[in-house]
Amino acid sequence: MGHATAAVLVIGDEILSGRTRDANAHLAAQRLFARGCKLLEIAIVPDEVDVIAASIRRLRARADGVITSGGIGPTHDDVTMQALAEAFGVPLVEHAETIARMRAHYGEGWLTPARRRMARLPKGAQPILCARTFIPGAAIGGVYALAGVPEIFASQLEAILSEFGGGASFVREEIEVQAPESAFAEALAALQARHPEVKIGSYPRRCGARPCGSIVITGEDPEQVARVRAEIEKMVQSLA
Amino acid sequence: MGHATAAVLVIGDEILSGRTRDANAHLAAQRLFARGCKLLEIAIVPDEVDVIAASIRRLRARADGVITSGGIGPTHDDVTMQALAEAFGVPLVEHAETIARMRAHYGEGWLTPARRRMARLPKGAQPILCARTFIPGAAIGGVYALAGVPEIFASQLEAILSEFGGGASFVREEIEVQAPESAFAEALAALQARHPEVKIGSYPRRCGARPCGSIVITGEDPEQVARVRAEIEKMVQSLA
Repeated sequence: MGHATAAVLVIGDEILSGRTRDANAHLAAQRLFARGCKLLEIAIVPDEVDVIAASIRRLRARADGVITSGGIGPTHDDVTMQALAEAFGVPLVEHAETIARMRAHYGEGWLTPARRRMARLPKGAQPILCARTFIPGAAIGGVYALAGVPEIFASQLEAILSEFGGGASFVREEIEVQAPESAFAEALAALQARHPEVKIGSYPRRCGARPCGSIVITGEDPEQVARVRAEIEKMVQSLA
Repeated sequence: MGHATAAVLVIGDEILSGRTRDANAHLAAQRLFARGCKLLEIAIVPDEVDVIAASIRRLRARADGVITSGGIGPTHDDVTMQALAEAFGVPLVEHAETIARMRAHYGEGWLTPARRRMARLPKGAQPILCARTFIPGAAIGGVYALAGVPEIFASQLEAILSEFGGGASFVREEIEVQAPESAFAEALAALQARHPEVKIGSYPRRCGARPCGSIVITGEDPEQVARVRAEIEKMVQSLA
């Protein structure tokens, strides 16, 4: 069994400034759900070593596994590895295998200081490799530092997902409803109280001028979810 | 002058389960940037009173103003007002003006317990009103609790934005680069060191099979940003 609970830490000024809309945390949320791993929190913080290190410590204290996105690379704003090392109180060290791999592929002349920087990992960390890049992610103490470039994040995520969840997906079912929430809030609360084994959420929106919405049932057991779905459908029909 | 720094707290199981991709934090990030208010963190947490209350306290300790999204409404999973009251150690009380407005519009018979629930605010909070709904948001002690439905969130956000930032936008300029980050990382780090008045970020991607990317300069003063842009353009041209 992998980590039962997870948190995702997105590192990126570009998201906090509104330049870029996060895609990586959303992908991680979907993939963790599909493995039955409970995602407790997503946090998005700037490219600042102290803030990242404190966030890693805070989230790791809450969740069994923490996935970070971004801040891995050769430029000055790539400080995630340094923050990860700080969070665990270890130094950053050059990862010999990665240097050897770079040397074999590109030759010694290619290995400038900036490029060597990409091969540094917190001492004791395992590299996270994927087919799309030579720059490794790092796994240490239940924290998995992945790249921010979406294609590379996605590829590295697949490489570590077996560490999360039990393999069986959570189950989600949705029921459309053509009524305002206030018309069924009490009935739905009673249903939730009778079925603590599932989680019932209500998401209102507008369908043209009229209030409508979705009622979402989430659980671990498909039969339990189906049973509650049938009860909610009956309740919704009684509204019409 | 409004709040110089901000944090955004998104409340929603539907985002942590990957059902829904956040749009509200992204909109808030863009609008805060346009008002020159620094967004320090975005956090996304589940519909749980204790977690929400703790997150409000944590973020409010870091940022001058905190905007929350979601968990406002009549159903059992709408617990943001309760969490906000807990965070400030005050009780939830019915907001008399909101009740009066509902009564005037819909009549006494409409005011079921579930509907009255929508008019509860933390004691001492100011209602946040917008044209799109009778259900008020709440402002108390630098925390602004807004709805999760994107259209309503957007409308309520405009109603409170004057509390954030100084009105003048941060400035962002971007330069496209057709080279891998490792080719200019050292030069860019030197430029950042010489210009601490702006923030320089590097965002690599692939253009077909070749590495490319964007260099982004962010600052408060358009002239400073333009000056650094010219220096970076010269550096980038020297790569070709």
